[in-house]
Amino acid sequence: MTEELKNVLAEFDQLSFHEFIEKYQPYDLAEMVTNLNYEDQIAFFETAPQDLGAEIIEFLEPELQYRIMDHLADDSTITLLNDMSSDKVVDLLLAIHPHQAKILMEFLPEDYREKIKTLMTYEANTAGSLATVDYIGARKSWTIDFTLQHIRKVGHDAELVSYIYVIDTHGKLVGVVSLKDIILQKPTTTLEEIIKEDVISVSVEMHQEEVADILTKYDLVAIPVLTKDHRMIGIITVDDLIDVIHEEATEDIQKLGGSQPLVEPYFKNSVWSVFRKRIGWLLILFVAEAYTGNVLRHYEDTLEEVIALAFFVPLLLGTGGNTGTQTVTTLVRAMAVGEVQFKDFFRVMRKEITTGVFLGLAMGIVTLIRAQILGVGFDIGTVVAITAIFIVIWASFVAAILPLILHKLKVDPAVVSGPFITTFVDGTGLIIYFTLARVMLNL
Amino acid sequence: MTEELKNVLAEFDQLSFHEFIEKYQPYDLAEMVTNLNYEDQIAFFETAPQDLGAEIIEFLEPELQYRIMDHLADDSTITLLNDMSSDKVVDLLLAIHPHQAKILMEFLPEDYREKIKTLMTYEANTAGSLATVDYIGARKSWTIDFTLQHIRKVGHDAELVSYIYVIDTHGKLVGVVSLKDIILQKPTTTLEEIIKEDVISVSVEMHQEEVADILTKYDLVAIPVLTKDHRMIGIITVDDLIDVIHEEATEDIQKLGGSQPLVEPYFKNSVWSVFRKRIGWLLILFVAEAYTGNVLRHYEDTLEEVIALAFFVPLLLGTGGNTGTQTVTTLVRAMAVGEVQFKDFFRVMRKEITTGVFLGLAMGIVTLIRAQILGVGFDIGTVVAITAIFIVIWASFVAAILPLILHKLKVDPAVVSGPFITTFVDGTGLIIYFTLARVMLNL
Repeated sequence: MTEELKNVLAEFDQLSFHEFIEKYQPYDLAEMVTNLNYEDQIAFFETAPQDLGAEIIEFLEPELQYRIMDHLADDSTITLLNDMSSDKVVDLLLAIHPHQAKILMEFLPEDYREKIKTLMTYEANTAGSLATVDYIGARKSWTIDFTLQHIRKVGHDAELVSYIYVIDTHGKLVGVVSLKDIILQKPTTTLEEIIKEDVISVSVEMHQEEVADILTKYDLVAIPVLTKDHRMIGIITVDDLIDVIHEEATEDIQKLGGSQPLVEPYFKNSVWSVFRKRIGWLLILFVAEAYTGNVLRHYEDTLEEVIALAFFVPLLLGTGGNTGTQTVTTLVRAMAVGEVQFKDFFRVMRKEITTGVFLGLAMGIVTLIRAQILGVGFDIGTVVAITAIFIVIWASFVAAILPLILHKLKVDPAVVSGPFITTFVDGTGLIIYFTLARVMLNL
Repeated sequence: MTEELKNVLAEFDQLSFHEFIEKYQPYDLAEMVTNLNYEDQIAFFETAPQDLGAEIIEFLEPELQYRIMDHLADDSTITLLNDMSSDKVVDLLLAIHPHQAKILMEFLPEDYREKIKTLMTYEANTAGSLATVDYIGARKSWTIDFTLQHIRKVGHDAELVSYIYVIDTHGKLVGVVSLKDIILQKPTTTLEEIIKEDVISVSVEMHQEEVADILTKYDLVAIPVLTKDHRMIGIITVDDLIDVIHEEATEDIQKLGGSQPLVEPYFKNSVWSVFRKRIGWLLILFVAEAYTGNVLRHYEDTLEEVIALAFFVPLLLGTGGNTGTQTVTTLVRAMAVGEVQFKDFFRVMRKEITTGVFLGLAMGIVTLIRAQILGVGFDIGTVVAITAIFIVIWASFVAAILPLILHKLKVDPAVVSGPFITTFVDGTGLIIYFTLARVMLNL
C-alpha cells in the first residue's frame, strides 16, 4: 500500500491522490505515511484535505508530528494544530523540547492556547492529562432549535457529539443531554426540560485506571472531567480509555512476571532500560533466595547421610512455586478488575486453602509414584510425598494471603509476582522438607 | 443505599420511588436490586418506568433476570424483553434452560424472534455472539429530513444512534453516515451525498479478541457485523468490547500464571472447577520437572564429593527461572497487543540475549560474593558464578525463542507461562551447573 501511495504522490495529480486516500481509513493512511520518506511525508500533508490531515497526524508519533509541522507552510501547520483534538496537541507539546513547544503554541489562538497550557499542567496518568476540550457545551435555557444551530456551528471541531454538556455561567457542569434526545424532541423544547442532572464525572487528579474502571462499570462513551469546585475542564473519550485499559493490563502482567513495568511499547525500550527494569527485582529476589544456601548448609549432615534427599529438591520447590504462581496470578487479576476485595478475605482463604489441600493430595500421590520410579526406597518416598502435600498447601496459603494483605496496606498486590512467591516458597519449602526428613527418618 | 431503596419500596409511594431512582445510575440501581429480597425485586420492576427497567435488568445476572421476568405480569415481561438490547436477550436465552427460553421467546414479536434465534446460533466468543440488532438502518435515497423522522420513530430502541447504517435492498451494508453529519447537513440532502462507503466491519465468525483489536486500532465506538455475503446482521458496541478486552487480559494473565483460564469471575468458580483448571498444568510441569531427579542422581558422585554444590541449587535455578519469567511475560504480552510479531524474530532475539548477557554478568558478580559469604571456597564460588551467568543467558534465550516459535505455529504464546519456563530452566540449568563443576573442579 505504501508503494502505491508513493506512486500516487509522484504523479502530482490531485484527483488520483484523493481517490486513493478515500479508499483507506485514517489509521491505515497514518501507517503508510510513517513508512514514507521525509519529502513524501511533507507532500502528503500539503496535499491532503485539512480535516483528514488532522485525523491522520493524530496517529503518528509526536516526534514525527513535530518534524512534519516544522516543515509545512505556517498556514498548514496552523490548520493541522487547530483541527487536532486538544489531548493530542497536549501530548505533542509535552513530548517535544519546551522551546519547540513554545514556537508551536504561537500558532494557536490565545484563548485556546491558555486552555492547552492548563491541560499541560496535569500530571501524567491522571484524568486531567487525558482530557480534551473539544466537547460541545450549552446552556440550560437553550431551545433544541438553538442548540442544533450551535452544533452546526461548532460541531466540526468536536471529538464526539453524542453528548452535549450543559454548563452554567461559572463554568460548572449542571447536566448532560444526548444528541439522541435532542433529535427526538420538538424544536421549542428547552434543554432544561430534558437535561439529565446526575452525570457520572471524574475529578482532574483521579488516576486513569480508576477512570477506566468507572467507564467500564457504567458503559459510557465519554466522561466529563471536573475540577474540585465542579468546573468542567473537558471530556475523556472511550478510545483513550481503551488504550489505558490495555496499558494497565500490560503493566500488571509485567509486574506479575517480576519486573518493573516498561513505560514504552516493547521495541521503544533500549537494552539498558530493559536491564534496569529487570535487575532490581532480580537482585531483591536473589537476596531473598540466598538464604536457601544457609538452610541447605544447616542440613548438610542430613544431606550427606541421605544424598537421595537432594534429588527431589528442584521437583518439590518447583511444584510449590508453580502452585503459588497459579494462585497469585489469578487472585491479583481478580483484585485488579474488582472481583475480589479485602472484605472477601475469609472467602478467598477458604477457597484457596481447600483447593490447595486437594491439589496437595494429588501432587503427593504422583510424587510418591515418582520416588518409587527413581528407586529411592519407600521411607524416603514417603517423606518426599508428604513434603509435596505440605508445600503445595503452604504455597496456596502464602499466595492467597499476601496479595490480600498488600491490598489492605494500599500496596499494589501485583508486587507479589510469580517469581516472588516462587522465591518465598523455595526457602520455606526447604525447611519443611528437611524438618520432615529428620523427624520421619530419625536423622 | 439498598436499605434506603427497601424503605422507599415499603412506602408504596410512586413519587418518592421516582425521586429515589432519579438520583442513581442504572448500574447502581442494579447493584441495589441484586441485594433486595425476592418480593422487593419484583415490586421494583413493577414500579420502575419501562425503559429504565430494561436498562437496569441488563446489568443483572441471567438467572436473576429470568426469575424476575417469570414472576412479573406478562405485560411487564413483554415490555422488558423488547426494550432490552438484543445481545443481552440472547445472553439471557442461552443461559437459562431451553424450555424456559422457549417460553420467554413467545413474548417476542415474530420477526424479532427470528432475528434472536439467528443470533443464538453464533458460537460463543465470536463477533456474531456479541452483535445487537438494535441499530438504525437507512436507505441511500433517503433525505436528511426523512432520516431524522425515521430516527425519531425508531431511535428509542436503538443502542447507539451515533451512526446510521445504510443498507441496500438485499440487506447488504453499503456505507455509514454519522448522526453528526446528518445534523450538519441541509434537510434536502440525501444520504447518498454524504455516505462514507469504506466502513470498517467484521465477519460474524471473527474471534472477539480480533474484533477488539480492530476497534482499538481504529478508535471506533461500534463495528457492524456482516455475513460472508456482506449482509449486515447487527453492530457490536464499544462497551461490550471493553468487557472483551478485560476478559482477554484476564485469560492471558491466568495462562501466564500456568493455569487454564477460569471462564467465570473468581467467586463463581467452585473449588472443584478451580482444581481442574490448575491440576492439568501442575501435572504436566511435574512430569517435566521430574527429570531433575534423574540429573541429580546422575551426578550423585559429584554431589557426594562436593556437597557444597547442593547449597546453590535452589539459588541458581531460582535466578534462572526469575529471569525467564520476566522475559516471557513481557514478550507474550507484547505479542498479545501486537507490538511484536514473528517477523521481528531477530530483533527480539538480539534484544533479549543482549539484555540477558548484561543481567547474567550482574548476577554472576553477586553470586560470587554470595558464595564467598557462605564460605565455600573460591573454586566452588567461581563455578557457581559462571553457572549463574550461563543460566541467566540461557533462560533469556529460551524465554524469548519459545513464544516466538509458538506464535509462528499458531499456538497461543501464553502457553509458555512463567512456571513453564521455570520448569524448563530447572532441568537444563542443572546440567549446565554439574557439567561446569566437573570440568572446572576436575571431578
